[in-house]
Amino acid sequence: MSHPTFSSVTPALIDALCAIVGTPYVSTRNIDRQARSIDVSGHLPHASDVVVWAQNAAQVAQILKLASQQRVPVTPWGAGSSVEGNPIPVQGGILLSLEQMDHVIAIHGADMQATVQAGVKFRVLNAELQPQGLFFACNTGGDATIGGLLANNAAGPKAVKYGAAKDNVLHIQVALADGRLIECGCRSIKQSSGYDLTHLFVGSEGTLGVITEATVKLMPIPQHVSAVLATFPSVQAAIDTVVAMKRSGLDAGALEFMGAEFAEFLNQTSASYANERALAMLPTLFMEFYAPDAAALATGLQQVRQLCQANAAIQVQATSDPHQREQLWAARYAAYTTCQQVFAGQRLLTTDTAVPLSAYAALVGYIEAELKTRALRGFLLGHAGDGNMHVILPYADAATEAQVMAFNAALVERSLQLGGTSTGEHGVGLGKRAYMRREHGPALDVMRDLKKLFDPHGVLNPGKIFEVNG
Amino acid sequence: MSHPTFSSVTPALIDALCAIVGTPYVSTRNIDRQARSIDVSGHLPHASDVVVWAQNAAQVAQILKLASQQRVPVTPWGAGSSVEGNPIPVQGGILLSLEQMDHVIAIHGADMQATVQAGVKFRVLNAELQPQGLFFACNTGGDATIGGLLANNAAGPKAVKYGAAKDNVLHIQVALADGRLIECGCRSIKQSSGYDLTHLFVGSEGTLGVITEATVKLMPIPQHVSAVLATFPSVQAAIDTVVAMKRSGLDAGALEFMGAEFAEFLNQTSASYANERALAMLPTLFMEFYAPDAAALATGLQQVRQLCQANAAIQVQATSDPHQREQLWAARYAAYTTCQQVFAGQRLLTTDTAVPLSAYAALVGYIEAELKTRALRGFLLGHAGDGNMHVILPYADAATEAQVMAFNAALVERSLQLGGTSTGEHGVGLGKRAYMRREHGPALDVMRDLKKLFDPHGVLNPGKIFEVNG
Repeated sequence: MSHPTFSSVTPALIDALCAIVGTPYVSTRNIDRQARSIDVSGHLPHASDVVVWAQNAAQVAQILKLASQQRVPVTPWGAGSSVEGNPIPVQGGILLSLEQMDHVIAIHGADMQATVQAGVKFRVLNAELQPQGLFFACNTGGDATIGGLLANNAAGPKAVKYGAAKDNVLHIQVALADGRLIECGCRSIKQSSGYDLTHLFVGSEGTLGVITEATVKLMPIPQHVSAVLATFPSVQAAIDTVVAMKRSGLDAGALEFMGAEFAEFLNQTSASYANERALAMLPTLFMEFYAPDAAALATGLQQVRQLCQANAAIQVQATSDPHQREQLWAARYAAYTTCQQVFAGQRLLTTDTAVPLSAYAALVGYIEAELKTRALRGFLLGHAGDGNMHVILPYADAATEAQVMAFNAALVERSLQLGGTSTGEHGVGLGKRAYMRREHGPALDVMRDLKKLFDPHGVLNPGKIFEVNG
Repeated sequence: MSHPTFSSVTPALIDALCAIVGTPYVSTRNIDRQARSIDVSGHLPHASDVVVWAQNAAQVAQILKLASQQRVPVTPWGAGSSVEGNPIPVQGGILLSLEQMDHVIAIHGADMQATVQAGVKFRVLNAELQPQGLFFACNTGGDATIGGLLANNAAGPKAVKYGAAKDNVLHIQVALADGRLIECGCRSIKQSSGYDLTHLFVGSEGTLGVITEATVKLMPIPQHVSAVLATFPSVQAAIDTVVAMKRSGLDAGALEFMGAEFAEFLNQTSASYANERALAMLPTLFMEFYAPDAAALATGLQQVRQLCQANAAIQVQATSDPHQREQLWAARYAAYTTCQQVFAGQRLLTTDTAVPLSAYAALVGYIEAELKTRALRGFLLGHAGDGNMHVILPYADAATEAQVMAFNAALVERSLQLGGTSTGEHGVGLGKRAYMRREHGPALDVMRDLKKLFDPHGVLNPGKIFEVNG
């Protein structure tokens, strides 16, 4: 940004960090630095020089102030479950871990809100909420912290109903680079009081400040749930069904797409789908619906069936039995993990472009054609209801990596032409920096001005969203 | 902000404005300036020196650049339907009207989106959308423009289901003070690409830039709708019902509260509620529910009745007949207009604080006690599902005005103590500037820094959100 020249982590700096958090919470051990050098992306690891576990927000603020004064990079870390290199400390310096800030401060049951420290994992929060019949709906594949979900504006399969992280937050506490600690927003559902600082920090990936606490919205756990699996003769038919579903007011809880090749891959690689349990090698939708009672669920399901059949569905399986629901969705749940297992030892690129729904079939068509032309192996798994598509591409050597990256660049370009974005839910991190000018045009200059305002020395998570010195 | 010294509108400036938009679209006539000197609030009118009707975004950008260069205040104007003085040109200068930027650019039916110029009124858009079975759900009482709704982050009674303006926008085009025109966001539902500039401008009341175009989300018009009116022995019982309703997953389309005194006032002032049609003088909830078919609606209504009765409801009237629906809701629709008519010639203060739902009954109790203590007449009308309350207070003389303002200050303080905000949906405008430091603490300094970054000469809608020279 501002062409920073960073300082090294010196013994004096380590002493200063120990003075802030206490000696037990500062480590320069290799094992601690390596464990926080890579997220679950295919980006290369990079270790920090020192790991610091903050215990509270005031410490986070002091660490940022120290890092700013000393011109030392400081990269916040939650659970390391990002998929775009967002928390990799590529410039070294301080790894500021929020792992131990994992206190659920308050559950406001009647308000359907929880106030948590940033390091609380959403799965832990949801386990605690379960007896109250509530849950935090921004539910990703990984084991993310609430702070991490907010910092990356993550989403996941339930976003089609509940929205992304940004839609599920009311208030955040943020530590700024100059050591100030501010409160953005409040616990009121409706807020129209001055500038929306909350949403400026949400999705900023720790480059403008560090979220230390958040009050998030909770949802009632649906009591009557159905799962539907439907296969279609073509991608277009599947997507037409998604469009019809959204227009119907049926308010699906999930509308997920899987490409035919992915079903074939699962059949080949997983014993779960051998022989008579083989998946249909067709474009497939995985859906979920909720209703206040069993009767309403049943009438809704009838409408879902009709909509699928009106769009030439080949097979429609629906159930509200919890065990059968698990079975119907098993392939969807297993998809990404199976890729990771089968391609262990290889790196995986997961694309994340998103387009308006009307362009989704065109996007899938483009992807399928490009994979063929480029002789690349890629698996399509999409949050169809939101127009968001992940293509998972394994690569093991430099030549394939170059081809995979070229495919990604072409896919981003095509997605932008279709009115979409380079990243629907994974954030910019390291992998989408190169597309920011193309995507945002002059608005990127405004983003840079904001970065300079909040982080004049460029020490906050340097190298993310923008190139360092870029 | 930056202690601006504004320049006057000179003949040379008017020539320059004529050069940008064309002579027919510049007026210094009294009638044009007066017609845009006041919104529907009780604030005092203030006329601009010149009214300019921009025809397109490029002209808006040029006007802002000119105003910045010449240090002349420029206040954007949509429909003048705000209720907190938000578009009153209190510092004179240029009134930048977007009234003629009223072109619906595109309706993306399959995507359930519309792209509009900022001056399109939401009622006009909804009339155009009706044949497609879609509507823009951010539906306020007034006749607002889409740009105005976004600039104030307005909400309205359907926000309990569909969210506020900020929840219904995907992309905006914004003219900046230096003449740049930027695009924020895109047409993808999911976006996690760099800083969320869209939500920085939404709710900024034209003080950071002027929204010239927007792509908004549309919703399917509900096909099966019910209206419910329920009366309760106490405010607490009514609010307990609201909490239970939200926890139930019934997903109400509206959850509105009316105080007992308001019902009494309507009985006294409107022939519609005379004699046997008199409203019950009790805390009342007005509710709306949607379902994909008649059967689901009926089962949902049964649950609603049970919830109301479990909370000691005195009367529960429910219907899905369109005509009867209108009748049930008539008092709610008529409420504000009746106040305006009965108190014509007086000014009205409409409070807008919002609190977490769990504190709503306490808030209502506080309001009722304070009105009594202060011997003030005030009518309670609340978006209960969102914890948002409007107290409408007429005043005609300076002594009453002072009492009304003192009540408002006390109410804001109490709402903040309860974890809420001074303004849920009307914005800061002129009336809530004094509470910004109390509400936001050090975050207000960050807002000021942002104002300075985007509007270094302080010419954009001066006097709103922050005091001029404050």
